Amino acid sequence: MARNTTVQADANAPAITRLLAEFVATHPSRGWSDAVEHEAHRTFLNWAGCAVGAARHESVQAALAAVQMLQPAPQATLLGRAERVDMASAALINGISSHTFDFDDTHLRTIIHPAGPVAPALLALAEVTGASGRALMDALVLGVDVSCRLGNVMYPEHYDRGWHITGSTGTLGAAAGCARLLGLDADRTQMALGIAASQPVGLREQFGTMTKPLHPGAAARAGLMSALMAQHGYTASKRALEAPRGFVQVVSTKAAWHEATDALGERFEIATNTYKPFACGIVVHPGIDACAQLRAQGVRAENVERIELKVHSLVLELCGKKEPADGLAAKFSVYHGCAVGLIYGRAGEGEFDDAVVTSEAVVALRRKVVATVAEGIEEDQADVTAVLRDGRRIHIFVEHAIGSMQRPMSNADLEAKFHGQADAVIGAAGSQALIETCWGLGRATDVGALVSAGRAPD
Amino acid sequence: MARNTTVQADANAPAITRLLAEFVATHPSRGWSDAVEHEAHRTFLNWAGCAVGAARHESVQAALAAVQMLQPAPQATLLGRAERVDMASAALINGISSHTFDFDDTHLRTIIHPAGPVAPALLALAEVTGASGRALMDALVLGVDVSCRLGNVMYPEHYDRGWHITGSTGTLGAAAGCARLLGLDADRTQMALGIAASQPVGLREQFGTMTKPLHPGAAARAGLMSALMAQHGYTASKRALEAPRGFVQVVSTKAAWHEATDALGERFEIATNTYKPFACGIVVHPGIDACAQLRAQGVRAENVERIELKVHSLVLELCGKKEPADGLAAKFSVYHGCAVGLIYGRAGEGEFDDAVVTSEAVVALRRKVVATVAEGIEEDQADVTAVLRDGRRIHIFVEHAIGSMQRPMSNADLEAKFHGQADAVIGAAGSQALIETCWGLGRATDVGALVSAGRAPD
Repeated sequence: MARNTTVQADANAPAITRLLAEFVATHPSRGWSDAVEHEAHRTFLNWAGCAVGAARHESVQAALAAVQMLQPAPQATLLGRAERVDMASAALINGISSHTFDFDDTHLRTIIHPAGPVAPALLALAEVTGASGRALMDALVLGVDVSCRLGNVMYPEHYDRGWHITGSTGTLGAAAGCARLLGLDADRTQMALGIAASQPVGLREQFGTMTKPLHPGAAARAGLMSALMAQHGYTASKRALEAPRGFVQVVSTKAAWHEATDALGERFEIATNTYKPFACGIVVHPGIDACAQLRAQGVRAENVERIELKVHSLVLELCGKKEPADGLAAKFSVYHGCAVGLIYGRAGEGEFDDAVVTSEAVVALRRKVVATVAEGIEEDQADVTAVLRDGRRIHIFVEHAIGSMQRPMSNADLEAKFHGQADAVIGAAGSQALIETCWGLGRATDVGALVSAGRAPD
Repeated sequence: MARNTTVQADANAPAITRLLAEFVATHPSRGWSDAVEHEAHRTFLNWAGCAVGAARHESVQAALAAVQMLQPAPQATLLGRAERVDMASAALINGISSHTFDFDDTHLRTIIHPAGPVAPALLALAEVTGASGRALMDALVLGVDVSCRLGNVMYPEHYDRGWHITGSTGTLGAAAGCARLLGLDADRTQMALGIAASQPVGLREQFGTMTKPLHPGAAARAGLMSALMAQHGYTASKRALEAPRGFVQVVSTKAAWHEATDALGERFEIATNTYKPFACGIVVHPGIDACAQLRAQGVRAENVERIELKVHSLVLELCGKKEPADGLAAKFSVYHGCAVGLIYGRAGEGEFDDAVVTSEAVVALRRKVVATVAEGIEEDQADVTAVLRDGRRIHIFVEHAIGSMQRPMSNADLEAKFHGQADAVIGAAGSQALIETCWGLGRATDVGALVSAGRAPD
């Protein structure tokens, strides 16, 4: 029956489903600057390290156990593991793994984690189809562009409402990327976007549970399947993104349509991707950075009398846990962050192990951190002074933490982060081989060498 | 960073995730009246006929072609087909098939099609696990209760906003049913609901495309996988349904929480399920019904001078196409409906074949239908007079069409509908065998006989 609805909708939105489909299907291979191309490689490398790093986590074990009940064909590689599963399940599992430590990447304008839904779908599809590394990198740039542009259309209202924007836009990014990798024309790419539009994934309520990393995984899986269905003639609305009862207007009251197409093919969202240097809340990062700098200047924990930390009020509000009991709690403790920054010079997932969090040395140093809120310190800054036993005071001011747009992770930083996660899973030599295949991906004949390097031995 | 959000949310919602999980996990087997039990069998039988009926449709072909790229294990049956695929893919394909003709069932209060997402997930899981028919029927009643109750919580705002409510609540119904069939305890059932809550499927914009039937299929698949993941220890928010950034408040501004639990375990939503007698828009049904009654009284097309049809204005507004060019258009033509009602006495998918729509006899009779809007006729009524060549006038008034709550389809009607769809696919004897296994499902040792009957020969 016809209903008089009170939900307002805009019937005159531009045809962004078609415009994005044409862009994805027809933009020339490597039609962008060296800087974009390099950032795409950094995005993939950082993603692969995260996927290997968490490959043995209990969330991956549980998801894989469920997938194995499907008796999947051994089509595609799970990074950091020996098992092989069908390509859609590989997209799911590698997507879960890469986001499990919350240590992957961030498109800061929308807080989308761009690689998580797109890269695993592409890697699995490329492995099965024998696609070239060039084709994969093209699909990664274009897929991330679609998801982040849709994020720009809807952020922040969509996120404030409760959607985990990584998963809700990620299905579309994965579908776009997979459509490109399959070589679909604009019509079928439009259908792939349409099929994917009906399958947004992700609620913010799930933060702190295994279902948070499910979001990029399930988005990767749904996006890949949408592209495969479109390839075989499955149909969807041609206006699935922009119609009054279509994706954007159903999941967001903000719809800045121009964001979908402004400078399309000229400005690429992947160029603004950033990578987390530390596996914890972002407001803790400046303090860790400062303490790691103290360590680099020769300061050692045993010589420290006190660490004076001045921060923005938000830092203590969000991450003020003084005596975290375990690793998860420590991710929200600036005291713990400073302690491991000074002792280890880093704060990867290993520095949030329960054993580290409860170790004598870390607990002792944590208690020497005196944090105060100071006027004039921004939330992405930290003012740290180490007061040594001999009375010396060594001062560090961090204006922008490592990993920010202003101080991006260097390639060496990314490689160190990669080793820090992946060596324990596939060994240092395996990590190095995987890193090298990632840097060379744009020139690779196929992804065979990459997945061989990323696979754990039987 | 913390955001001050303008999106309002209710932090004091009752713990419906837990309450529904406890209900699904602990309600006694067959803990309901004979009437509920019988309606559950009618629901399953009607669903199975629809799934067999559309098994060779191009939407099923396209979706299956995509699934076959995963090289699925031959775990589970596709109704009406010879291929076998993994159980999650079987849930997907059977869910698509059963909704393809838009001919399945309706929970009138929410216009949810209840079986589509729940039944295929349960059938596939039961086939693989060897579950009893009793366990399957229990899971069907409880799964449908969860999805329809969540529909009651959110309807109509959620639907008006643009969600295809069958898919958005169906993921949760399928997850609940599969959790029950797996024998999960309340804790794990709660996790299954939580995992499913992040995966709502379905936009109304897709109506008229293959992605509409994808909605129950994808919901079935996601719900089944959510239950399997929960079985293996995957976690989600314990308040995924009711939290401020949880399912209900993210996808609806209406949240009538009491609907989730009012008379829980006493009133079962499946008891109010209805079944479509005709494969077309619901407002056409009274006219078809009236013309089929004329035929039963001996009226034949060749003797008809004119058919005078009086209807509510909505009927012509929604379904007033005078000269439909093909089957899809004919589904929105009350003229076509009356013509096939009188000629064939029915209006199944076959009566919307392009060949029937363009046949001389149907076109000729269609042009003899004179429809007018009349005061005092409700939208679910029809006043029809056949004016014969010999001058006689035969009058039929339909107060409530067949298939409504007031005039439910009889078991014989359901069986005739079943044969009308399924005989062409698995033969009349095959259909009869499948019908009989459906009626006896609650006493069946397992679903082996049912899937044998429903499978097409190699």
